Amino acid sequence: MVKHRATVAAGTTSPPETEGRLDPNFTRRVIETMGPNVAPRNRQLMASLIHHLHAFTRDVELTNDEWMAGVRFINAVGRISSGTRNEAQRVSDVLGLESLVDEIAHKVVAEGNVDPTSSSILGPFWSPNAPFRRNGDSIIQDPAPGGRVCKMHGTISDLITGRPIPGAVFDIWQASANGRYDFQDPDNQTPNNLRGKFRADDNGRYSLYCYRPTAYSLPTEGPSYDLLKLMDRHPMRPAHIHIMVTHPEYRGCTTQLYPRDDPWLTTDTVFAVKDDLIVDFKPLRGDPKAELELEYNIILSPKDYKGRPPRALL
Amino acid sequence: MVKHRATVAAGTTSPPETEGRLDPNFTRRVIETMGPNVAPRNRQLMASLIHHLHAFTRDVELTNDEWMAGVRFINAVGRISSGTRNEAQRVSDVLGLESLVDEIAHKVVAEGNVDPTSSSILGPFWSPNAPFRRNGDSIIQDPAPGGRVCKMHGTISDLITGRPIPGAVFDIWQASANGRYDFQDPDNQTPNNLRGKFRADDNGRYSLYCYRPTAYSLPTEGPSYDLLKLMDRHPMRPAHIHIMVTHPEYRGCTTQLYPRDDPWLTTDTVFAVKDDLIVDFKPLRGDPKAELELEYNIILSPKDYKGRPPRALL
Repeated sequence: MVKHRATVAAGTTSPPETEGRLDPNFTRRVIETMGPNVAPRNRQLMASLIHHLHAFTRDVELTNDEWMAGVRFINAVGRISSGTRNEAQRVSDVLGLESLVDEIAHKVVAEGNVDPTSSSILGPFWSPNAPFRRNGDSIIQDPAPGGRVCKMHGTISDLITGRPIPGAVFDIWQASANGRYDFQDPDNQTPNNLRGKFRADDNGRYSLYCYRPTAYSLPTEGPSYDLLKLMDRHPMRPAHIHIMVTHPEYRGCTTQLYPRDDPWLTTDTVFAVKDDLIVDFKPLRGDPKAELELEYNIILSPKDYKGRPPRALL
Repeated sequence: MVKHRATVAAGTTSPPETEGRLDPNFTRRVIETMGPNVAPRNRQLMASLIHHLHAFTRDVELTNDEWMAGVRFINAVGRISSGTRNEAQRVSDVLGLESLVDEIAHKVVAEGNVDPTSSSILGPFWSPNAPFRRNGDSIIQDPAPGGRVCKMHGTISDLITGRPIPGAVFDIWQASANGRYDFQDPDNQTPNNLRGKFRADDNGRYSLYCYRPTAYSLPTEGPSYDLLKLMDRHPMRPAHIHIMVTHPEYRGCTTQLYPRDDPWLTTDTVFAVKDDLIVDFKPLRGDPKAELELEYNIILSPKDYKGRPPRALL
């Protein structure tokens, strides 16, 4: 056997006692395989991604079966995605990623004691095709059993001057009383039901009729639900109204509004709730079209406003 | 405007000067949303995954557009995957992940000066259906233009005793001279072309005919290729032969063998080359069936062999 062992051993060298069990240069080598023609930002992104992916893998000593389960999961995410279902977005939402990205992009800490309206995640249900409607119109095209009509109104104003912003566009979308958006629910809803854009008047005011929103569950099948089950988490989003407020001279604000009594506020499955987005729906008298009222004022910061200098990131 | 500002400000509080720009508790809150019924290992995996995913996102201050590009990438990976194309595995290979997982699982540092044969990644082309063939048979069912036939043989032996391991199963698969595996190339190859299992004889020996392997490119379309282009990397795998050697009483060894003169050894697109897996193909005389010879001996460690105690991971 001496010859046999020598033959094989020729190509191998035992690492010195001082080395760890894993090759300490592996991650650096993978990163350094990038060529010279990578855009600087892409090099930064990929180096950091590879670094953290490998650090995760080492930290947990990821097994082959666990890695392969991850591979199957990623493939399944793409397979179930479609024009009306963005599963990769949903998975990243469930892991808090969209909310974190939103915070990084939009967190403005004002110098005074008023902050601009907090942003929150866009989610997968915004549509670029929502029609303009007139102030005072309703976005309810298809009345739904159990839906409680609400008159919603408010002023859109400037963070610095406090002045109204005439012409600002107030884009609103929400699920119906059954917890579904129009394009998830073609049997009950016509396109653009519960969607609409409103242009603020000369006093920066908008008004419309919508539903008090209804809490709903993310789909209870598919990879994102499998992930929630693995983490022993519920699939509920608190009831919410989506809004996106824009004006060419201001930073846009995409956000969501939540009724104060919703039971899912602190465990929102996509982590999109912020304190100043929690609102009170009040009884409305004297308006035959609605039983509730919601006043919500929006504050936008000018495009060139920087706020307090940001501190170093965590 | 006083009333307006007061109304909105009621729900907001500016963070104290001492706080950073981002909520320092966000990641912990996402992790702590996991319920009480999560298996301990799954809790560890998901907590570490969320931690590293958020750390990456903060480190690079990931923008909304970059995040959405990632979402679209994940969806595209799943959409292009099929029974014969595992794109998520390929993407993870290109990022070095399968190779790292393999190293974590299989790195055994022997106590003596002989190591067991190094493992390498399985890759997406192994088949559970390869037929048993007889020692001395060829795995070439469909001769290919340019293929150089090689007689491959060797001994499978025990790391501790040096004794042969009769009955060990030597499973081999390789791409044809055009760089394609049977199920990627149904027009030119019959099922199980260039695949076969061989049982080591009483002396632990196996022998067969195969091709000197040919370097090939990963697919030059699809998400994994897009990722390689982004990183200014080539899509080439060095020429290689896959083997998987198993016996019920030993730790199996799945690995790959590479010709020493291959130009892609140091930049293998999936980072699967290790020193003791680089081999020499030698001219063969006196055998009309082959022009080359490769002797490769395999050393397996017994199932209960632990090697030197592993050190702490990086």
